[in-house]
Amino acid sequence: MANSEVVISSCNSPEEENRCNFNQHTAVSEELLLEDQMRRKLKFFFMNPCEKFWARGRKPWKLAIQILKIVMVTIQLVFFGLSNQMVVAFKEENTIAFKHLFLKGYVDRMDDTYAVYTQRDVYDQIIFAVDQYLQLRNISIGNHAYENKGTEQSAMAICQHFYKQGNICPGNDTFDIDPEIKTECFFVGPDEPFHPGAPESSKLNFTLDFHRLLKVELQFNLKAINLQTVRQHELPDCYDFTLTITFDNKAHSGRIKISLDNDIAIRECKDWHVAGSIQKNTHYMMIFDAFVILTCLASLSLCVRSVIRGLQLQQSLTSYDVCSIFLGTSTLLVWLGVIRYLGFFQKYNLLILTLQAALPNVIRFCCCAAMIYLGYCFCGWIVLGPYHDKFRSLNTVSECLFSLINGDDMFATFAKMQQKSYLVWLFSRLYLYTFISLFIYMILSLFIALITDTYETIKHYQQNGFPETELRNFISECKDLPNSGKYRLDDDPPVSLFCCCKK
Amino acid sequence: MANSEVVISSCNSPEEENRCNFNQHTAVSEELLLEDQMRRKLKFFFMNPCEKFWARGRKPWKLAIQILKIVMVTIQLVFFGLSNQMVVAFKEENTIAFKHLFLKGYVDRMDDTYAVYTQRDVYDQIIFAVDQYLQLRNISIGNHAYENKGTEQSAMAICQHFYKQGNICPGNDTFDIDPEIKTECFFVGPDEPFHPGAPESSKLNFTLDFHRLLKVELQFNLKAINLQTVRQHELPDCYDFTLTITFDNKAHSGRIKISLDNDIAIRECKDWHVAGSIQKNTHYMMIFDAFVILTCLASLSLCVRSVIRGLQLQQSLTSYDVCSIFLGTSTLLVWLGVIRYLGFFQKYNLLILTLQAALPNVIRFCCCAAMIYLGYCFCGWIVLGPYHDKFRSLNTVSECLFSLINGDDMFATFAKMQQKSYLVWLFSRLYLYTFISLFIYMILSLFIALITDTYETIKHYQQNGFPETELRNFISECKDLPNSGKYRLDDDPPVSLFCCCKK
Amino acid sequence: MANSEVVISSCNSPEEENRCNFNQHTAVSEELLLEDQMRRKLKFFFMNPCEKFWARGRKPWKLAIQILKIVMVTIQLVFFGLSNQMVVAFKEENTIAFKHLFLKGYVDRMDDTYAVYTQRDVYDQIIFAVDQYLQLRNISIGNHAYENKGTEQSAMAICQHFYKQGNICPGNDTFDIDPEIKTECFFVGPDEPFHPGAPESSKLNFTLDFHRLLKVELQFNLKAINLQTVRQHELPDCYDFTLTITFDNKAHSGRIKISLDNDIAIRECKDWHVAGSIQKNTHYMMIFDAFVILTCLASLSLCVRSVIRGLQLQQSLTSYDVCSIFLGTSTLLVWLGVIRYLGFFQKYNLLILTLQAALPNVIRFCCCAAMIYLGYCFCGWIVLGPYHDKFRSLNTVSECLFSLINGDDMFATFAKMQQKSYLVWLFSRLYLYTFISLFIYMILSLFIALITDTYETIKHYQQNGFPETELRNFISECKDLPNSGKYRLDDDPPVSLFCCCKK
Amino acid sequence: MANSEVVISSCNSPEEENRCNFNQHTAVSEELLLEDQMRRKLKFFFMNPCEKFWARGRKPWKLAIQILKIVMVTIQLVFFGLSNQMVVAFKEENTIAFKHLFLKGYVDRMDDTYAVYTQRDVYDQIIFAVDQYLQLRNISIGNHAYENKGTEQSAMAICQHFYKQGNICPGNDTFDIDPEIKTECFFVGPDEPFHPGAPESSKLNFTLDFHRLLKVELQFNLKAINLQTVRQHELPDCYDFTLTITFDNKAHSGRIKISLDNDIAIRECKDWHVAGSIQKNTHYMMIFDAFVILTCLASLSLCVRSVIRGLQLQQSLTSYDVCSIFLGTSTLLVWLGVIRYLGFFQKYNLLILTLQAALPNVIRFCCCAAMIYLGYCFCGWIVLGPYHDKFRSLNTVSECLFSLINGDDMFATFAKMQQKSYLVWLFSRLYLYTFISLFIYMILSLFIALITDTYETIKHYQQNGFPETELRNFISECKDLPNSGKYRLDDDPPVSLFCCCKK
Repeated sequence: MANSEVVISSCNSPEEENRCNFNQHTAVSEELLLEDQMRRKLKFFFMNPCEKFWARGRKPWKLAIQILKIVMVTIQLVFFGLSNQMVVAFKEENTIAFKHLFLKGYVDRMDDTYAVYTQRDVYDQIIFAVDQYLQLRNISIGNHAYENKGTEQSAMAICQHFYKQGNICPGNDTFDIDPEIKTECFFVGPDEPFHPGAPESSKLNFTLDFHRLLKVELQFNLKAINLQTVRQHELPDCYDFTLTITFDNKAHSGRIKISLDNDIAIRECKDWHVAGSIQKNTHYMMIFDAFVILTCLASLSLCVRSVIRGLQLQQSLTSYDVCSIFLGTSTLLVWLGVIRYLGFFQKYNLLILTLQAALPNVIRFCCCAAMIYLGYCFCGWIVLGPYHDKFRSLNTVSECLFSLINGDDMFATFAKMQQKSYLVWLFSRLYLYTFISLFIYMILSLFIALITDTYETIKHYQQNGFPETELRNFISECKDLPNSGKYRLDDDPPVSLFCCCKK
Repeated sequence: MANSEVVISSCNSPEEENRCNFNQHTAVSEELLLEDQMRRKLKFFFMNPCEKFWARGRKPWKLAIQILKIVMVTIQLVFFGLSNQMVVAFKEENTIAFKHLFLKGYVDRMDDTYAVYTQRDVYDQIIFAVDQYLQLRNISIGNHAYENKGTEQSAMAICQHFYKQGNICPGNDTFDIDPEIKTECFFVGPDEPFHPGAPESSKLNFTLDFHRLLKVELQFNLKAINLQTVRQHELPDCYDFTLTITFDNKAHSGRIKISLDNDIAIRECKDWHVAGSIQKNTHYMMIFDAFVILTCLASLSLCVRSVIRGLQLQQSLTSYDVCSIFLGTSTLLVWLGVIRYLGFFQKYNLLILTLQAALPNVIRFCCCAAMIYLGYCFCGWIVLGPYHDKFRSLNTVSECLFSLINGDDMFATFAKMQQKSYLVWLFSRLYLYTFISLFIYMILSLFIALITDTYETIKHYQQNGFPETELRNFISECKDLPNSGKYRLDDDPPVSLFCCCKK
Repeated sequence: MANSEVVISSCNSPEEENRCNFNQHTAVSEELLLEDQMRRKLKFFFMNPCEKFWARGRKPWKLAIQILKIVMVTIQLVFFGLSNQMVVAFKEENTIAFKHLFLKGYVDRMDDTYAVYTQRDVYDQIIFAVDQYLQLRNISIGNHAYENKGTEQSAMAICQHFYKQGNICPGNDTFDIDPEIKTECFFVGPDEPFHPGAPESSKLNFTLDFHRLLKVELQFNLKAINLQTVRQHELPDCYDFTLTITFDNKAHSGRIKISLDNDIAIRECKDWHVAGSIQKNTHYMMIFDAFVILTCLASLSLCVRSVIRGLQLQQSLTSYDVCSIFLGTSTLLVWLGVIRYLGFFQKYNLLILTLQAALPNVIRFCCCAAMIYLGYCFCGWIVLGPYHDKFRSLNTVSECLFSLINGDDMFATFAKMQQKSYLVWLFSRLYLYTFISLFIYMILSLFIALITDTYETIKHYQQNGFPETELRNFISECKDLPNSGKYRLDDDPPVSLFCCCKK
Repeated sequence: MANSEVVISSCNSPEEENRCNFNQHTAVSEELLLEDQMRRKLKFFFMNPCEKFWARGRKPWKLAIQILKIVMVTIQLVFFGLSNQMVVAFKEENTIAFKHLFLKGYVDRMDDTYAVYTQRDVYDQIIFAVDQYLQLRNISIGNHAYENKGTEQSAMAICQHFYKQGNICPGNDTFDIDPEIKTECFFVGPDEPFHPGAPESSKLNFTLDFHRLLKVELQFNLKAINLQTVRQHELPDCYDFTLTITFDNKAHSGRIKISLDNDIAIRECKDWHVAGSIQKNTHYMMIFDAFVILTCLASLSLCVRSVIRGLQLQQSLTSYDVCSIFLGTSTLLVWLGVIRYLGFFQKYNLLILTLQAALPNVIRFCCCAAMIYLGYCFCGWIVLGPYHDKFRSLNTVSECLFSLINGDDMFATFAKMQQKSYLVWLFSRLYLYTFISLFIYMILSLFIALITDTYETIKHYQQNGFPETELRNFISECKDLPNSGKYRLDDDPPVSLFCCCKK
């Protein structure tokens, strides 16, 4: 019977249908068979998870691992974020407290205007800071202490930097200067014997030559313990603060800006005792992290990076910045990975394809717009820079213009322009009006035109078929449905080969 | 004549017209008659109120009730809103007054920076608050009084919370702590005998161990009467204020934040007398509310919810929050209900249909965008969180990014980034530029493309007919106009059945 | 020859052409002639100014007058605006000066937080204001003086408003009140004999019962002369300031808000002498205004309104508000009038027609959106009102939501939400996210779809002809070009009537 | 036949191809040859750089020079910008320091509210400024010194401006004034002998008649040297500061505004000595600038302007404003020039062409919108000007409205409206709502419609060919490809002419 004979199991494309029914000969071309197998394999390769499940019963392991990975990574991220947040808050509160303790007359949020303008004020500020440092034990309400260096407590270093030699007579427009910089330091320690009743700073016996002075720096170390974690049953960390109060006179403009800088080092405490069953629960964290690592190893491609960071979290514990950038970027990529799975649904695919197809044109157009944008950036920096805060540096110019395009506070930008030079003022108006009009009305509109056009093209393709490639033409001759069972590898080959004729 | 004979009153569809004129036999198929009646009934069911009025003279009761309901609900809402507003204003003004009375050196709008940094300031603040409390009668200009507890007046409770045992030596990186928290309170009452001339607070004889201290709380009760309502001929309410001044030292960072919290209970006054014809006009309100309820019962579907809340307004009078959420939501729904009636006009319908048809695609697209959005959220929180206020919590990150898409203050967001770490600073620029570009230029444009496309599709349907469903095909064979009189139920059936042929 | 005979001068429409050449009889139908004349007149009526000029040599007087009117009205407006601006600036500077003179501890921009909280502060404030008033001559640096009433100088009235009778015991939740309001006043005059050395306010011997007190008002008059105008050769005006300092205790919340209100009356000075050739140049202004009136009378339709206001400017000189609203609105209308003339150019017309054609649909759509908008307004007011400043009144809710749609400060709106009640906080997030998404992504996109669609329709009409009305069909049979000379009224009628055949 | 004989070496257009192959005679018509040459030359002229390279092997020198120019100009710009920035920063810091030194009670950022309100304060302020000036040497921490005039040091000039004669009695509404302005000055010098112990200002013995007073001016000169540049191995500059403190009483409103103005002149120092190998490195700058000039001369067209400015930089060193405007504008133009080269790529061209083609329509439409815009501007200025800061001048009205269209802070604009007159308040709401709706929903949407339409037109042209001009038709008959070698000028003409037939 024809049925029992060997028949070419060509895929049931319409034009082959007739051949199947009428020409069932024994002479089988081996080549045609191979070609057909290749076609089937390729078609299987390009199937989506659902279809693969129907075709060979293959479970979507990759998708499951992907979802598991997202959950794990997100949990890990949240733990890291919360711990990071607590450390940052502790550091910031301490810095604010130090500013209030060591800077005379300091009021919140005046960092950028905190400066002195007379000689007496400079001396007052220095003496105030030294006094407060010496009395720290009786003043501070935090867990602050001097650093112990052997048997002594660390002293405060008061250093002044000045030109080696200088004779400045602005009145005659003459000067004689040696620009080499000299540094002189002396130390005030909390352990030195006190003269009771007298202010400690009366010992300070130094004068500043303001004409030559470049900088005065007060540097000292303080230590603290972050007890907060005790209540979450975690072990407290020990903090080393390195405080630097800088009086900056580099410009010799009559204004000495004062800033307090606080550098932090976090270390495990040496010797501790906590009543009750407290222990460092980083052990649990490590087990959890290891589990995350195992999960991630399953989808090596994306996760190798985040695994390494996960391990590093245990060792290099204080370089939070690099950790967080890697963690953050990998999370972003993990989420973007999900979009690929949404693309298996027809309607979602339309939207994703549109964005994909429009991207090259959008980038291309951005190049053109970037030329105009760069021109405006340089022009604005040069002309408006001296008169407008937002145009002080190339970086802020770019941010300001980018913000204006996207609907930022325009009136404030107009208004902050200083009106010293009428010419420049006029230029600024012309500059801002043309820039905003050009970018908002012309360029943003063109983006919309680009996307709308791409959307219509893709929609038309979805209804009438995409332009076919050669590979796709080769595959398309195989018309077996995924659930036809012909893709199963363990099936009896003859049965699967002949079935196209039975149908 | 054929015309006077009994004829099948088939609806006058064009293809039936001929049959009508030429085949007028007495044999009437009962089935055809029934089918025709069904068709007419269905067509009537899908008519809009105007057409129903023409068809059967049916008045649009539902529409009228809907409009009445909107009016009633809106009036009820306005009454509730105005009363709510007055209560809130009274509460807030009292809170501001208490802050000025009990917090030393308090200035408006400094709530988030109100803190102390030295030991002496902590004692000063506590003594000041106690002094002010004891002298309240001579200081306050409001109707404030101590609470009477039996014959006595309620005292102020001063409580300190601290670690049971603690020995903190940051200088040596060592500590020995028992994290159990102990609380010690003592009371200062206004009734205690005064030593004239001496400050009352000299009696306070307590010390704080700042290393172990977690929190100091000053708690006391005050009472007041809101007389304002007397002038609108309403009865005044009595208010109980529970004030808590908290000195928060949980972080031991050297900064103790002080906050004043004011909890309110509103009760009817016990014993009152008002000259003239004043009475609590909630009785009128109740009558009005009842009327609203009757109105609402008529359109049960939407209003059951708001009815219950309307009743609750009389009983649970102070849980304003839940009331207002239910009231607010129901109002929103009531207004949305009106849109359905606008849909009966052809031109309005076009717009509403477009929004309806575009919604699934918009939501679908939002899912895709949400993936990218979530990725950016997590990434921003982890990396920028420690350096930028707007990225401190996941919640604010989401709000910040959502605002940026919709044209919020971009430059400020750029500028507030702290410049401590250059790497993170660079990352923040990359992050913000890519996020804004991606969402504003790609995704917002695609929304417009989606809506434009849907609008054109719906417009085309309106001009050339919607794709028909089977039900609609069945109905469409009935071509009687609404005002043809054939839909009237009380008419003589044969007349109405055969009239389609006369036309 | 037929050509030389009298021929019906029917318009040379194509279908009439043949009749012209072949049927040239002497019997002329009077009716056809009339119809033809009517057609020609109608066509002329619908011509634009350029064509009318070609057709009958008519100069575009209307256009010229329109342009002249714009110039005149703009000049008049600028004069009015500048004078208005000077008056407003003088008034505001005086008000600021009075606040600094009479309010103790007043600092710029603290108007909304300027309040007192203790009994002593209330007395201090009143005594300070009285003292400053009595010493005004020696303190003020402005041209301020007391008002002369006959031989005396006007005194300051100090009035307190309080409940007639009141016994408030919040401690027992009881009160006994007579809500009738009594007012007691006494006067302090600058003419009363001074006790040198003693502070003037020691005479003040009054007490306030804060439990009953509703309001304290300090009212007094001051006079000033605005000399500024002397230098622009205009006559100075005399100003009467009526100052009211109000201590508002209506709420009895422990906070008495203090506000200073300054009412102004501007009058001509009674008796003046200015060295040199100065005179009130309102005479020139009147001549100019009269000229404007003459110009405007020529284009009565739009200008009658602004003429009356122009005249009123001379009489009712101080009701600047009504004047300015009418002037402003008329200017807006005048400028809108110019758009009609731009419509005579083909390419401009396209844009104007698009806006015109899209307007009904836009308004229609706004109705639908307004339903949702109103729903959100009411809902937001009720629920968020007590917790968010921007949602305090229905008016601000609407402004806030409208601003959010158009890209206002979104993050600030999110952030200002008080976090007292978690439920309400959650609701506010849901509320804002849905509102913004709905309006920005759905509704704004639909506007663009509407306009784009209309633009394409109109462009298609311009290329292929508009759908014709019956009138237009009637006119279109007349095909004479404007410069054919056939529209001239003074020509010999027969010649102009028959000329269409000669062509 | 003649036609078949003489053969033209016409370009190889398809219809000529056959003739070419069969009719190759020697009789060549000179005219046809010339026409053909012209056609070829024209085609070459319109080629892009790539094609020109293929056609004649011409290297794209212009492009190379253009790119070189951008690099050079940008480097030059950055040098200029950085130097400019340093000068501006030095000037600003000095101005801030002077304000803190000479204005009593000055606090940062209070420039616009810094004013006095009582007579005593005016005297205090003047005396304070004089005292500080006399003690400058002991107070200032900057390199400030008095100017030396011969052997003396320059004094401070204290000038008061007042009406020549004035008798102002606001109480009686009368005044007698001579508007001529008199000026009286006296000088206080640092060289005058001091009475030790006594404050220097006790010598000041002057009184102000506030009724007549218009202005008090304190003017003095200070000198400084900007040492900062020494460390970058550049020579320091000498600065002359001319300081003017103005007490402005022009308005006589009771408020005297105080402002400090600082004019700067920068000069080379006369006599200087710097240890080490420092020299003014402007010589290197000059060599670099000369190189830039040489580069720019090569592309004369655009650069002549910037060359002149480059030279001027060496001479007129302090007119930074004009320099920077020319430099900025030329940079903008240089960058715009790059866009032309992007246009040679097909896909980029599409976008650029769209913007070019849409521009006329956009400008046309802007004219229409400008009418409405101007109407709103005038209307807003007149009506809202007195009540809203943003509407004070026509200029700010325009900026405010322009910002509102582009998504500026709308709620703030709504909220800042003063609520004195209910009528005006209502008008402001109507005004803002209509303006924003009209411009954002109608006009911005139409821009998008315009661009979308143009984009589709241009895309259609690119696919189906642009509408051809006569010139283009003439050229198009020449079909030689650029790399056919026929455009080479040094080739043997006959070969190149006839080669079209060989192909």
